Amino acid sequence: MITDKIKIAVLGYGNIGCAAEESVNSAPDMVLTGIYHHNDDLKKIKADVVLICTPTREVEHYAEKLLKRGISVIDSFDIHPQIYSLRQSLKPIAEAHKAVSIISAGWDPGTDSVIRTLLQAMAPNGITYTNFGPGRSMGHTVAAKAIKGVKDALSMTIPVGTSIHRRMVYVELEKNAKFAQVEKAILKDDYFAHDETHVIPVPSIKELNNVAHGVLLERYGVSGNTHNQRFEFKMEINNPALTAQIMTACARAAYRMCKQKKYGAYTLIEIPPIALLPGDEETNIRTLV
Amino acid sequence: MITDKIKIAVLGYGNIGCAAEESVNSAPDMVLTGIYHHNDDLKKIKADVVLICTPTREVEHYAEKLLKRGISVIDSFDIHPQIYSLRQSLKPIAEAHKAVSIISAGWDPGTDSVIRTLLQAMAPNGITYTNFGPGRSMGHTVAAKAIKGVKDALSMTIPVGTSIHRRMVYVELEKNAKFAQVEKAILKDDYFAHDETHVIPVPSIKELNNVAHGVLLERYGVSGNTHNQRFEFKMEINNPALTAQIMTACARAAYRMCKQKKYGAYTLIEIPPIALLPGDEETNIRTLV
Repeated sequence: MITDKIKIAVLGYGNIGCAAEESVNSAPDMVLTGIYHHNDDLKKIKADVVLICTPTREVEHYAEKLLKRGISVIDSFDIHPQIYSLRQSLKPIAEAHKAVSIISAGWDPGTDSVIRTLLQAMAPNGITYTNFGPGRSMGHTVAAKAIKGVKDALSMTIPVGTSIHRRMVYVELEKNAKFAQVEKAILKDDYFAHDETHVIPVPSIKELNNVAHGVLLERYGVSGNTHNQRFEFKMEINNPALTAQIMTACARAAYRMCKQKKYGAYTLIEIPPIALLPGDEETNIRTLV
Repeated sequence: MITDKIKIAVLGYGNIGCAAEESVNSAPDMVLTGIYHHNDDLKKIKADVVLICTPTREVEHYAEKLLKRGISVIDSFDIHPQIYSLRQSLKPIAEAHKAVSIISAGWDPGTDSVIRTLLQAMAPNGITYTNFGPGRSMGHTVAAKAIKGVKDALSMTIPVGTSIHRRMVYVELEKNAKFAQVEKAILKDDYFAHDETHVIPVPSIKELNNVAHGVLLERYGVSGNTHNQRFEFKMEINNPALTAQIMTACARAAYRMCKQKKYGAYTLIEIPPIALLPGDEETNIRTLV
């Protein structure tokens, strides 16, 4: 294929993979070279950058394999306490194979991390509250589905302020399962035991499905000696569409960093924001500042 | 002075200079080496980085002089259409003298520019509205003060949505000045002729003084093919305190970029956000993502 566009492949074709196909096809400077299922032969992939849209626990495995072929990779790995170790493990591989990995490149972790960093620079003393939702929590949904007697489940995260969340757990029961037992098991589960949790039986989970999500980031802090500096960042978004769009923007940054020989593994807060946008950097600087 | 702290000097001692003294003194990794008035002898300044807190039109003059001495500089130059040409004129000087200049390092231009860049990456199609205020507009205040018969003035910027602003112009009249004539002259002035403007006579401007300001950035846009992605960033802040704090954070970034030999002139959107924070970068990455 002869083109000066960035060649992007998508690995994994769930919610985020589908949205990634759309965002890559909408990008003026990219061409989609293929969509691959996670059990496809990775050697078939031809691309400058691969968007890894597999479940989060499979990210490291595929990132390693692709980096070793010199292909840059983007993921939206979202297990916060393991992000740093993922970066440390991918960094030497990316460096050795002259590629770039941008990890945890979604909205949280990801663009929210950039906002939190900025707010901390703007008001070094103070508290930042991250209030998620309303929206589906993948981790909690999976935990609820694993409970005996649950055929299908949906755990919604409801923000109640100051980084505290309520869990609304909708369950579709197996035949003959007793709701009272299922409710008790969910409330005892470590995923739910520490938050206000309500379990609600419904005839069908499918009908509740909605990929809307959101966040309210708040910081009240101190700049210099001046208190009462107030900041808010709020989003109401389609979750996979935003995640895929941010990954796509990061693919562009990874491609550029490769050209500049800045090989390695990075989180979003380590990347100049201008690198995320298509088009000539000098023109963008002129327009955006 | 033997210290491993970053040596910072402040040039100019108005609202922002005073706040800069406080923010530098609050920074754990900095030491303030001096505060200089704009007519002091610049050769006396000993510092790694100078915060240029003079009026915006004097920034280029002082930045050039200091860069030529190999001293990095930070400013909050705020005339939007001239930012790019300031960067282009300071860039070769900074490169030649192994220094770093971070320009327009306030909140708008500055951190707002970073947020606008992020939002454009997150939803490439759509409109961003920047709604300023309520707060004092320096440019409009100066324009009102220049009108014949005006002893003192204050022009407040009031947001009315979709980047449209109302101007509330408070005027303290000279003895024998006629309010009707002053009002007419203000409404005809090019600074005010295009916006809804109200002129109000008051006995004393001094009593109205308040450095509060704010912004509401809104973007409704499209990620991939998905419309109705909604974003809001809102601040209610003490203006000079925030401006000085951002300049201080940028002084840290400039110092680090100098160590990494990334000499030149930069706007905030070209800088990795992590460079703004004190302390070990690896520890910060671990904490913030």
